[in-house]
Amino acid sequence: MQDNDLNRRFAFVAEIDKIKHIVRKTKLFDGSRFENDAEHSWHICLMALSFLPNAAEAVDVERVLKMLLVHDIVEIDAGDVFLYAPERAAAHAKELAAAERIFGLLPPEQGGALKALWLEFEERATPDARYAAAMDRMEPLLQNLALGGASWVEHGVRREQVLAKNSVIGDGVPAIWEELRPRIEAAFDRLEKA
Amino acid sequence: MQDNDLNRRFAFVAEIDKIKHIVRKTKLFDGSRFENDAEHSWHICLMALSFLPNAAEAVDVERVLKMLLVHDIVEIDAGDVFLYAPERAAAHAKELAAAERIFGLLPPEQGGALKALWLEFEERATPDARYAAAMDRMEPLLQNLALGGASWVEHGVRREQVLAKNSVIGDGVPAIWEELRPRIEAAFDRLEKA
Repeated sequence: MQDNDLNRRFAFVAEIDKIKHIVRKTKLFDGSRFENDAEHSWHICLMALSFLPNAAEAVDVERVLKMLLVHDIVEIDAGDVFLYAPERAAAHAKELAAAERIFGLLPPEQGGALKALWLEFEERATPDARYAAAMDRMEPLLQNLALGGASWVEHGVRREQVLAKNSVIGDGVPAIWEELRPRIEAAFDRLEKA
Repeated sequence: MQDNDLNRRFAFVAEIDKIKHIVRKTKLFDGSRFENDAEHSWHICLMALSFLPNAAEAVDVERVLKMLLVHDIVEIDAGDVFLYAPERAAAHAKELAAAERIFGLLPPEQGGALKALWLEFEERATPDARYAAAMDRMEPLLQNLALGGASWVEHGVRREQVLAKNSVIGDGVPAIWEELRPRIEAAFDRLEKA
């Protein structure tokens, strides 16, 4: 093959297949099994399209989709860290190295653009990133609510932690957070009575 | 909940989770297991971003991504039909009914827009759809090539069928098809010698 750039694109595309092996801490809506990062990433892209009329600020759909498509690629090297785990804060350095390596497989201009979008997502400082982050948080929350909070119980996560960690949903889609917050309270009320 | 549109969005988002149970005929690049439609859809979105410089015609990335994100949702009702199966031609009516039902869960304007993109993808009559279709074909082809043509052997698919069915890759990304066609020939040469 003469085209080195094409070679690099093929290498990137094969490498990211590994994300399908990164198993998350939350289960599918029917509870049948844990889901992986590829499935999660696909789902939150569709959520981003679905909940767009509820966005707090005007967003650029193309940039949001790109962020969501790449946001978990770093976990190929860094692994999935549970949202409520104490290791969460320390994970960033590992993830940055992973971004250098994996996006670095692409031709520099392409890889650099995707890495910049990943960083923007991580920093949550733009309307696009805040909306994208809300989608990322909402999917496991909806799964957990559908299953009565099963993974919170399993991992000993408290009501206050769930409310605090998921409040970023309110930054992206305030009306939806107003809807989901009482559902979280009700789920914990039921768990505490049980 | 007062907001009926939001209700509909939640219903759609929960329903499409089922796509994670639609198992395809091709395996992950490492051959460890078959992949599902959610994983496949995520992967071809990343391919669309990666191979953009190789597109035959100018494309609208946002529209391409949306097409790829929704293109297999109909399989929740209609199932995955192998590219080389004789039932392939008859599948369209079933898929159309599935599109009506599933996109119809969303508020009409949103569901209609996604259904229109799905139809455009199916018809392959626009540059965006041709590029998207090339990505859809390329992923299982790359997986098969990575595994020495395992699923062709398993399903008794012939060289001519593979070359004919995958030639749509050439309509979307001609330079890549020039690269992949000899790889298909070489894979069949090896299979025939074995």
